[in-house]
Amino acid sequence: MGGDFAPEIEIKGSIEAALEKSKDIEVILVGKEEVLRNTINGLNLTLPENVTIINAKDVIAMDESPSDSLRNKPESSLSVSIALQKEKKADASISAGNTGANMAHSTYKLGRLNGIGRPTIGTILPSVNKVSLVIDAGASVDCKPRHLLEFAVMGSIYMNSIFGVDNPRVGLLSIGEEKSKGNELTFQSYELLEKSSLNFIGNVEGSDILRGNADVFVCDGFIGNIILKFAESILDLLKYKFKAYSELGIIQKLKTGIVKNVMKESLSDFDYQNYGGVPLLGVNGVSIIGHGKSSSLAIKNMIFKAEEMVRKEVNKKIEFEISKYLENKIIN
Amino acid sequence: MGGDFAPEIEIKGSIEAALEKSKDIEVILVGKEEVLRNTINGLNLTLPENVTIINAKDVIAMDESPSDSLRNKPESSLSVSIALQKEKKADASISAGNTGANMAHSTYKLGRLNGIGRPTIGTILPSVNKVSLVIDAGASVDCKPRHLLEFAVMGSIYMNSIFGVDNPRVGLLSIGEEKSKGNELTFQSYELLEKSSLNFIGNVEGSDILRGNADVFVCDGFIGNIILKFAESILDLLKYKFKAYSELGIIQKLKTGIVKNVMKESLSDFDYQNYGGVPLLGVNGVSIIGHGKSSSLAIKNMIFKAEEMVRKEVNKKIEFEISKYLENKIIN
Repeated sequence: MGGDFAPEIEIKGSIEAALEKSKDIEVILVGKEEVLRNTINGLNLTLPENVTIINAKDVIAMDESPSDSLRNKPESSLSVSIALQKEKKADASISAGNTGANMAHSTYKLGRLNGIGRPTIGTILPSVNKVSLVIDAGASVDCKPRHLLEFAVMGSIYMNSIFGVDNPRVGLLSIGEEKSKGNELTFQSYELLEKSSLNFIGNVEGSDILRGNADVFVCDGFIGNIILKFAESILDLLKYKFKAYSELGIIQKLKTGIVKNVMKESLSDFDYQNYGGVPLLGVNGVSIIGHGKSSSLAIKNMIFKAEEMVRKEVNKKIEFEISKYLENKIIN
Repeated sequence: MGGDFAPEIEIKGSIEAALEKSKDIEVILVGKEEVLRNTINGLNLTLPENVTIINAKDVIAMDESPSDSLRNKPESSLSVSIALQKEKKADASISAGNTGANMAHSTYKLGRLNGIGRPTIGTILPSVNKVSLVIDAGASVDCKPRHLLEFAVMGSIYMNSIFGVDNPRVGLLSIGEEKSKGNELTFQSYELLEKSSLNFIGNVEGSDILRGNADVFVCDGFIGNIILKFAESILDLLKYKFKAYSELGIIQKLKTGIVKNVMKESLSDFDYQNYGGVPLLGVNGVSIIGHGKSSSLAIKNMIFKAEEMVRKEVNKKIEFEISKYLENKIIN
């Protein structure tokens, strides 16, 4: 019920996913049952057999404080859908609603994986080398070195399991390639990452992300979040500049039309809808967080991603890797 | 002597600046005199009356450690040119050489302005609102709140004096607009900035930079540097994507040609050469730091910027503003 276009696109995306992978997936729509039924009827849709509805009477607003929602909305669609995992009635939950509330409810309800101090969300950015993962992208700020190691482990497993990257290159985001460049957090994190069994390639810089000079870019969530939002605004600036240019005359207008077309086609392999949200890694369950403006295509792909996370046992891999660092007393 | 194309472009840019503002500017070329004279002759140039040469026997390499250069290169072109300010033989120094060495030599030789704890360099990024200043962009990491206040004061004066922005809007770069969003550094810095007489507009996000939702974006240099380098790599990714697209066929190739042309024209008002480097703010003198790949146009504009910094008494304004915070015990 939480996304900007809820519940229409959630319903459409769910039905599409359920039909496309009818053998593998059962979808439970969680929300105000009456609203859901009315929307389904209004859209002239019929629920396939593998799509059911569970009623949840509350909705968390997009701007509601995560802690308030934890306190006051135990029967929200978000909360109920996550609780289904605890009750073993679902293997994963997805939402295009309030990101902070999703993180809070998921962490609170599902708990953390063994050995994980802080759950994390990464963000996928385009690169000349297909995609780069920047992790953490805002779940966790004022991190300790061990948290950056956790992010590196989780990011590495994620890129390997979900994006098929062999032995992902892990870079520590800093302000110079040399080990001596950075801040207190990176100096200490470097020491930990060096001791890990990850494919740690040392410090990387802001310019290495889009150039694809690592697969996993590890950083404190304060930095990752600023990069993510900065990146999201690039197209806005280009559109603004192109619009101003197009208003110079008819030739410019024609040229700008071509530019838009080329931009769209040449950047088509990077459409966030295809990536279908990002998982909150490190919780004892599968919780996929989508953009508030998710389309039905994005919802469908979020469902597929959830299925993949479960099938590939990403959480089991994370716990196994982290347990090695605990055993070897690299972290404690 | 330090830039990637030294000393040719330094000589050309200096002569152009000296001729264009012959009444206002005297340029002293500092470097290996023989190399300079030979280069001038080789280029068939003649030095105008207001361009002179002072010999400096050493050169700091672009990859030399700043501290090593401080210890071992007292007679480098960089060091000698900065020393001219101490000897009252120059009002400003400019260099396209080793940035770290420039900051170290400038800070060490010139000292800091009264009340300034850490000198800073900002970076100018394009925005829908002309330009945004992100400060600090890498001079200072692991900052304390008072340093962020200093950056805000210096950045504000800089945007007002040099870019003509009235009452510049100062935003604190964070991960949410609400005061409650951020990390330990921003929480404490917010309190200080609120007490200041700056036009403080509260927290701003990564997406606000290119959208021009503030004029001065204050942050720790670790973050500013990563943003700066990330921004510099955007065009690389676009070029890569466009190239791949252009190789799909002749039509695509023609279209890509148009795209390049439009990009160039519509982004022409943001050519770093026009901004001519950035000053190291907070030192007791004027030190302009240019890109290693500076062209002669960039050098010329760096000289003009230096002249403007001196003429507009930017340093005096900074000391005056900071003194108010010291008097009112907002910082101590």
